[in-house]
Amino acid sequence: MNRLAKSQIQPLLKSVPSWTLGVNEACLKRTLQFKDFNEAFGFMTRVAIQADKIDHHPNWSNVYNKVEIELWTHDAEGLTTKDFELAQFIDRVALK
Amino acid sequence: MNRLAKSQIQPLLKSVPSWTLGVNEACLKRTLQFKDFNEAFGFMTRVAIQADKIDHHPNWSNVYNKVEIELWTHDAEGLTTKDFELAQFIDRVALK
Repeated sequence: MNRLAKSQIQPLLKSVPSWTLGVNEACLKRTLQFKDFNEAFGFMTRVAIQADKIDHHPNWSNVYNKVEIELWTHDAEGLTTKDFELAQFIDRVALK
Repeated sequence: MNRLAKSQIQPLLKSVPSWTLGVNEACLKRTLQFKDFNEAFGFMTRVAIQADKIDHHPNWSNVYNKVEIELWTHDAEGLTTKDFELAQFIDRVALK
């Protein structure tokens, strides 16, 4: 899995408009807010199950109803298509 | 729920030796490492259920098999007995 070049990242970013790029296109970031902790952790659980299934895990933190997520591919030291796939999954779960 | 004074915190800290105090006794911190993501998130799920039950939620982050936790009581702007109760619960879950 190769790290994506800047020119490859820009078009992919349009598929996940809720996400922002980290410095040097090193990661994708999104902060989500839910009604309460129950909803926030329910969301995290759905993402966790998918993440382990595809063996691609988020870097994330949670405080009550807020979840901050950063995605990158450790082995590639940057972004790969796996990060965009997981971002798209997260967006679909967040909409429900 | 009142913020605990430094003199009250020191004896309570002995009940949770795996935890360290933040600056100005503002929080309790612990980092836990598990075999893999499945174990780390399984642990988080057990803590989440308990946290919501007692309406006292951790501030935490997770990267693969690592979980970093900070506990404090928002309303008291510092540590209360609730934080030590949750820390003790977390220690019991972590041992299993």
